Amino acid sequence: MVDLSTPTARGGYAKGDARREHILEVATEIFGTQGFRAATMLQIAAACDISRTGLLHHFPTKESLLEAVLAHRDATSGEQPEPNDSDPRARLRRILAVVEHNATQPRIVNLFSVLSAEAGERSHPAHDYFVQRYDHLRAELQEACRTLAATDQLAPGVDPHALAVEIIALMDGLQVQWVLAPEDIDMVAILRHRLNDALAIPLDA
Amino acid sequence: MVDLSTPTARGGYAKGDARREHILEVATEIFGTQGFRAATMLQIAAACDISRTGLLHHFPTKESLLEAVLAHRDATSGEQPEPNDSDPRARLRRILAVVEHNATQPRIVNLFSVLSAEAGERSHPAHDYFVQRYDHLRAELQEACRTLAATDQLAPGVDPHALAVEIIALMDGLQVQWVLAPEDIDMVAILRHRLNDALAIPLDA
Repeated sequence: MVDLSTPTARGGYAKGDARREHILEVATEIFGTQGFRAATMLQIAAACDISRTGLLHHFPTKESLLEAVLAHRDATSGEQPEPNDSDPRARLRRILAVVEHNATQPRIVNLFSVLSAEAGERSHPAHDYFVQRYDHLRAELQEACRTLAATDQLAPGVDPHALAVEIIALMDGLQVQWVLAPEDIDMVAILRHRLNDALAIPLDA
Repeated sequence: MVDLSTPTARGGYAKGDARREHILEVATEIFGTQGFRAATMLQIAAACDISRTGLLHHFPTKESLLEAVLAHRDATSGEQPEPNDSDPRARLRRILAVVEHNATQPRIVNLFSVLSAEAGERSHPAHDYFVQRYDHLRAELQEACRTLAATDQLAPGVDPHALAVEIIALMDGLQVQWVLAPEDIDMVAILRHRLNDALAIPLDA
């Protein structure tokens, strides 16, 4: 990521980058509250304090803006694989860290709740993105849970395939309740409790 | 529910009821795929094969139509309290039955996924509906889980408060994955597995 606070030899590019980044932040907010379909480019341009033409210069279509918002979010979410992710317990700890981070990012949570639900419709421009996102996440977590099962690290009776689907569902479902009642729902505590319960030895031990 | 297939002495009323019911079915579909904000009354009228004025005769605003769609869904969902709901195991079995029913109703699942996510925004007309819906459901399930805990019917280490939040989150999150990959996700099997795991004696026993 470009550090916008330091001077740079790139001059005009850096300015363009800052403008682009600002548009992505604003679009994240608007897609997350209005949904992709109801949001308009005119509305996003106005919220960025630029003209519609200025916005179209950076993103020629609403679809291309959505694509950039999702790519931007993926690049900054902390969800990318890390070196120690082959350790399945470290992988589960990182899921907890992502949820802890999300609990400080209501805009991002809104964005993903609204878009993943809207994208159930096949004609939605993010349909394939979300199908692939969940396929990938399920495969990766199922692998981690199978490794835990094979090394007797799951609690008795826990099915590794079901657990992987369940963890993802729990993250998504907790977000719905948290957005509606942030004071009442501690996403991290509930997920940690469930993970510890599914493991032979608690995560924190 | 009015049985529209049988003759009735109510004449004109029955016709109006059938028209109203048809509008609610169509609106469920359109709100569930487009979202409330992006859907238009003109689009809904066209899909019902009536004029916009004809639609406004039944539902003067898009908000009033949304309210009727949610009330209609609540009345036909099988989620209302039943006589044996004071038995917490019967209550959990009924949750499974609702999820089993939902797995045959992709339109309703879409509607609730999309609306509950959109409604996170305070200005959304269904915001209060969903805040209250989840508050109520959590309170009711927490009561059931507390009864199970008090009578030693939960597996060791299961927290009744967390379990109630978790069951609701699991139902919502499984829907997101199921809508995107219906062939890969068995919502009932995953939820049943989790419930059995949380209970001292499995539900089916």
